Amino acid sequence: MLLDHINQPEDLKRLSTAELEQLAEEIRQFLVEKLSASGGHLSSNLGIVELTIALHTLYDSPRDKFIFDVGHQAYVHKILTGRKDRFDTLRKYKGMCGFIKRAESDHDVWEAGHSSTSLSAAMGMAMARDLKGEDFRVFAVIGDGAMTGGMALEAMNHIGHEKKNLTVILNDNEMSIAPNVGAIHNYLSKIRSDKHYRKAKEEVESLLKKIPAIGGTLAKTAEKVKDSLKYLLVSGVWFEELGFNYIGPVDGHNLPLLLETLKQSEKVEGPVLIHVITTKGKGYSPAEMDSHKWHGASPYKIESGQFLKAVGNPMYTEVFGNTLIEFAEKDERVVAVTPAMPGGSGLMNFAARFPERMIDVGIAEQHAATLCAGMAAEGMKPVFAVYSTFLQRAYDQVVHDICRPKLNVMFAIDRAGFVGPDGETHQGVYDISFLRSLPNMVLMMPKDENELRRMMRTGIDYNEGPIAVRYARINGLGVPMDENPQPIPIGTWETLTEGETMAVLAVGPMNQVALEAADMLRKEGINLRVINARFIKPMDEAMLLQLAKEHMPIITMEEGSEQGGFGSAVLEFYAKQGIEGMRVRTMGVPDYFVEHGSIKEQRQEVGLTAEHLITQVHTLLPRKRQRSAGLNA
Amino acid sequence: MLLDHINQPEDLKRLSTAELEQLAEEIRQFLVEKLSASGGHLSSNLGIVELTIALHTLYDSPRDKFIFDVGHQAYVHKILTGRKDRFDTLRKYKGMCGFIKRAESDHDVWEAGHSSTSLSAAMGMAMARDLKGEDFRVFAVIGDGAMTGGMALEAMNHIGHEKKNLTVILNDNEMSIAPNVGAIHNYLSKIRSDKHYRKAKEEVESLLKKIPAIGGTLAKTAEKVKDSLKYLLVSGVWFEELGFNYIGPVDGHNLPLLLETLKQSEKVEGPVLIHVITTKGKGYSPAEMDSHKWHGASPYKIESGQFLKAVGNPMYTEVFGNTLIEFAEKDERVVAVTPAMPGGSGLMNFAARFPERMIDVGIAEQHAATLCAGMAAEGMKPVFAVYSTFLQRAYDQVVHDICRPKLNVMFAIDRAGFVGPDGETHQGVYDISFLRSLPNMVLMMPKDENELRRMMRTGIDYNEGPIAVRYARINGLGVPMDENPQPIPIGTWETLTEGETMAVLAVGPMNQVALEAADMLRKEGINLRVINARFIKPMDEAMLLQLAKEHMPIITMEEGSEQGGFGSAVLEFYAKQGIEGMRVRTMGVPDYFVEHGSIKEQRQEVGLTAEHLITQVHTLLPRKRQRSAGLNA
Repeated sequence: MLLDHINQPEDLKRLSTAELEQLAEEIRQFLVEKLSASGGHLSSNLGIVELTIALHTLYDSPRDKFIFDVGHQAYVHKILTGRKDRFDTLRKYKGMCGFIKRAESDHDVWEAGHSSTSLSAAMGMAMARDLKGEDFRVFAVIGDGAMTGGMALEAMNHIGHEKKNLTVILNDNEMSIAPNVGAIHNYLSKIRSDKHYRKAKEEVESLLKKIPAIGGTLAKTAEKVKDSLKYLLVSGVWFEELGFNYIGPVDGHNLPLLLETLKQSEKVEGPVLIHVITTKGKGYSPAEMDSHKWHGASPYKIESGQFLKAVGNPMYTEVFGNTLIEFAEKDERVVAVTPAMPGGSGLMNFAARFPERMIDVGIAEQHAATLCAGMAAEGMKPVFAVYSTFLQRAYDQVVHDICRPKLNVMFAIDRAGFVGPDGETHQGVYDISFLRSLPNMVLMMPKDENELRRMMRTGIDYNEGPIAVRYARINGLGVPMDENPQPIPIGTWETLTEGETMAVLAVGPMNQVALEAADMLRKEGINLRVINARFIKPMDEAMLLQLAKEHMPIITMEEGSEQGGFGSAVLEFYAKQGIEGMRVRTMGVPDYFVEHGSIKEQRQEVGLTAEHLITQVHTLLPRKRQRSAGLNA
Repeated sequence: MLLDHINQPEDLKRLSTAELEQLAEEIRQFLVEKLSASGGHLSSNLGIVELTIALHTLYDSPRDKFIFDVGHQAYVHKILTGRKDRFDTLRKYKGMCGFIKRAESDHDVWEAGHSSTSLSAAMGMAMARDLKGEDFRVFAVIGDGAMTGGMALEAMNHIGHEKKNLTVILNDNEMSIAPNVGAIHNYLSKIRSDKHYRKAKEEVESLLKKIPAIGGTLAKTAEKVKDSLKYLLVSGVWFEELGFNYIGPVDGHNLPLLLETLKQSEKVEGPVLIHVITTKGKGYSPAEMDSHKWHGASPYKIESGQFLKAVGNPMYTEVFGNTLIEFAEKDERVVAVTPAMPGGSGLMNFAARFPERMIDVGIAEQHAATLCAGMAAEGMKPVFAVYSTFLQRAYDQVVHDICRPKLNVMFAIDRAGFVGPDGETHQGVYDISFLRSLPNMVLMMPKDENELRRMMRTGIDYNEGPIAVRYARINGLGVPMDENPQPIPIGTWETLTEGETMAVLAVGPMNQVALEAADMLRKEGINLRVINARFIKPMDEAMLLQLAKEHMPIITMEEGSEQGGFGSAVLEFYAKQGIEGMRVRTMGVPDYFVEHGSIKEQRQEVGLTAEHLITQVHTLLPRKRQRSAGLNA
C-alpha cells in the first residue's frame, strides 16, 4: 500500500503521477472502510480526493494556505497531514474532529463548520500576506452550494475588486447537501452542459478566423469586435465580470489535468477561479447513486451500502415534518421555508405533498428569514425550518425584519441544544439567549413529541407576531399522540409532579432528566416539584409569583447557554419584581464551546444529568432538610 | 403650487407629464426647505424624486407594493401619500419616522432601516401573491450600495431562479453612503461609462449585418453565432445570467423616459431589473457636490449650504478615529475594517494616513467580520469598526469565526446604546446581550473619552482572543486626555465614589448619570458607591464578592436591553456562587423597541436618568434607612 508510507505532504512530492492516481484509489478505499464503522461525511470526501492530493503535491502546506469551506470535506487533507491513524476516533468524544480544527494540526490554518466563510478568510490571509510583505499562496476550496451564501458573494465582490493574488477552487458537484437551487446554480449548469458556452466559443473562434481579411473600416471594426468578444471566449463571463480570471471547467477526477491546470493558474496575476467538476461519492457506487442520502452517513455495510440504522422512537424532526403536513392540509396560509436543508429538517414528505408551498432558497439564511417576513406581511403563515446554529446567520433579520414589525413568522428551530458528533460549530446553545432578548418574540420548547405537536398548533394559530418552537436532535419519548393537538395558552407552564421541597423549572428534554431525579429523590423523602417551563418567553409569571409566595427554592435547567439564558430570565423577573430572598440556582451550558461527542457525553460533561441535578438539590436544601435527609450541613 | 393639491397618489394621475415635472421641482424645493430645519436624509431623497413620482403615477399603491430598501429615501413617497404636513416632526420624538413605517400609513407595506432587505421582502410578497392567486405588482427600489449586501445577493440568486413577476429598480447613484466599492460596482460603472458595452453592441450589430450572405456551413455558423451573441447585445449580461430581464441604463431624472420604461417593462414575463441612473442631491448644488457629507444632513442654511453645527466636546467616534491613528503609527499589525461607514466611524483621517491599512468592504458586515478573522489568523490586529446595530448582521461570524477559534479581532462598536433620531431600527441596545453570552469574548464600555483611549490600548495589546469596546453616539465629557493611555487590567472595575448606603454598577455613560444622582442623594445623607463597571465581561468578581460581604444593595445601570444584559450577568454571578440574600435591581432598556427622538428623550422614556435612579434608590433603601431619610417605610 502506498498509503502506508504517506505521513506528511512531503511524502507525496516523491510520487509519480501514476502513483498519485493509485494513492487516490487507496484513499477512497480507506475512507469507505473507516467510515463504514464511524459514519461521517463520506460523499463530499470521496469527491475531493484528487483535488486534495493535487494541492498537497504541488504546494507547501502550511506555508501555503488551504482553506476548506465548511471543512467537512477535509478528511483527505487529514489523511495526508499525519492524522490517518486517528480515523477510528473520528467525531467521537475527545477524538478527531469531523471538521477542520486549528488545534489539531498546523496544516489546519482555518476552521469552520458553517458554510461560505472560506472566501472571506482567504481574502483576509491574502491581505495580511501583502501587508506583511510575505509570499505564499492562498487557496479557498468552496462548493457550488456554499458559493451562493450571502457572505461568500460579499467576499467575491470584494476579492474581484481588490485584485489580490488568491485562488478560489469552485468544487462543483451540482449539489450542496440538498439538490442545489438558485440562478447561480443554473448558470453553472449552463457552463457544465457546454451547449451554450463551449459551442459559442468554438463558433465565434471559427467565425473570426473566416472573416475575410479586408482593408478599411470593416477590418478595424472586426478587430474591435474580436477584442470585445474576448469575454465570450471564456466560459465564466459571470465570474470574469466580477473581476476573476476564470479557468475551467476541469474534470476534478483527472489528476494529471488538475496538476496541469493548477500550474497554469500560477501564471495569472490577480484572483483566479478554477471551476472543478467533481462527483460526490465518487468511487463508491451506493454514495454516487444517492449522494444526498450519503452526505452525512451513519455507519453502513460496505458491500450492500445499507445503513446500520438505530431503532427508536420518531425523532422530533420527523414529528415536525409530519405534523406540518397535517396542518397545511387545512390551512392554505402555511408555507415551509428551508435554507438548503429540506431533508435534515424533515420536510421531504411536505415537499412531495405541497411542492408549491415548499420553498428551498439554498444556503441563504438571511434571505430565508426576510422572505418569510415578506410573505407574512401578505397574510401567509411561513414556517422557517432552520437549525439553531444556522439561525445565527439570520439574527439581524429576526430582530429587524420580523420582531420589530411584529410579523407572523413561525420558527421551527431544529437541533436546539447539543447536537452530538458535529460538535462545537453546530451546537444549538445560543438561541435562547439571543431570541429571548428580542421584543415581541415568543419562544417555546416541548418536553415530548406530542407537546411539539401542540406547540406547532399554538404557533400556527398565533397571529400576534413571531413565535418559535425549538426542539432537540433526539428521539421522542414514544408518548401517545393527540389526533387533534390543542394549542397551549401562551405563557403558561405546567406542573408535572407536585412537591414541596424544591422546584425544578425545566426546559424541553430537561423535564425528563428532572423527573428521573425526582424519582430517585423521592426515596430520600425529598419531593421535587418538576415544572415544565414550556414557554421560555413569556414566562408563567403567576407561577413564578406563587413559588415566591411559597418561598420555594428553585433550580432552572436548560440545554442552552447559562449566559443570558432561561435561568437568567427567572433571576431577572424576581429582581424586577423586587422579590428578595429567593434561592435560585441555574443549570445550563457553561461559558465555553463544547466539543464533539455523543449528546449523552456532552450533557455529562456540563452536568445536565439527573445525577448532577440531585447534587444541586442536596446543596440547595434548607439546612434542616439537609440534616433530616442525613446530609452534612 | 401644484404640491398644495397633492394629497394622495390618485391626485397625480390627473396631471400631465409637464405638470409632473413641475411637481418634481416643487418637491425638491419642499425637501430642501423642510430639511434645512429638521435635518435628515436629503441627498438620497433629492435623487429619487422623479422615480417616486413615476411609480405613484403609473401604479396603484398600496395594492401595488413599493418596497424602498433602507427606507431613508422615502420622503417623496411620504409626501405623495398624505404626510407632507408632518414634515416638521420628521425624526422628532413622537413625530414622523425617518424611515418607512407600517404603522404610519397603509402605503408603507414594508419597513426597514438596515440595508439590502428589499429584494427578499419583494420576493416574499410576490410568492404570497401567486400562492393566493392575486394579481398586483411588486417593486423593490434598491441602491447600488445595498445591492452588494449578502442578503440582497442571496435574494437575487433566488429571484432569478424562480422567475416570479417582480421588478427590481436599481437606483444607481454611484455610491451608497460612502463611495462605493466592489466588483459589482465596477461592473455597473462599466455599463454606465458605455465604453465597453454600448460600443460592443453597436459594433457587433454592424458586423453581423456585414457578414456576407453565403451558403452552406458558414451561413449556419453565422446564424448560430448571431444567436449566441444575443447576450452581448444587452448591457446587463451579469444580471441576465442571474435570470433577470435587464433594462437600462435609464436616466432617473428624465420623467417621460422613466414613465415609458416602466410601461415597457410591464410586457416582460419574469423578474425585471431596471437600471436607473440618478444623482444624489439632484437639484441642490451643495448636496450634489458632496453627496457623502449630505447623506445624513444636520440642519443647514439653504443659501450657503452651511451646516448649523452644534458645538461640544469631541464625539467618542472622533476620539476613536484619532486614537487609532496614533496606535497604528507604532504598530504595523493594526488594520481598520469598515462595512461602508468610513465617515460615520470616524475613520476618514485614518484612511488618508494609512490607505493600505484601511479596508472598506462595502455593505458586507458578514464578510467584514470573517475577513478580520482571516487577517487575525495571519498575525494582524484587525479593528472592526461597526455600529452596534449593524454588528447584528455579523452575529454568526462573531460566534463561529472569531469567538470559537479565539482569534485576536478587536471590535470598535459605535452607536452603542440609544442613537436618537434614527430610532428603533438603529438602536444599539442588543449587543451586550448577544456578545456577553459568547465564550472568549471580552466586552468593555468607557465612562469617558479618555477611558475609551485606554480601552483601545487594552484592546490592541490584548492577544488572547476577541475583545470589544462599545461606545455611545454622544459627545465626550471634555476630560483631559492621557498622552500615553495605559491599558486597563482585564476584568477590573473602579470605584468612582465611596459610599456605604448602596452601590450602583454603572456601564459607560450611565456612570455620569449615577454620579449626578449621587451628588443629589448626598444632600439627603445617602451615600452611593458608584462603581464603573468598565468590563461588562469578564466582570470584576472580587468586587462583586466584596459587595456581597458588605451586604450592599446593588443597582445596575446600562443603556442596553435588560433581557440578558449586564444586570442579568450580575444576577447570574450571585446565583452561580450560591450567594443568597443579595438585593439587586436592574435598570436598562425594557422589552420593546424604542422609537426615534433625542437620546435624552429616549433615556427619559425608559427611565435611564438620575431622577429615576434616585427613585430606585429610595425604593431599595433598607427600611430603617428609609425612615431615617424621612421616607415612608
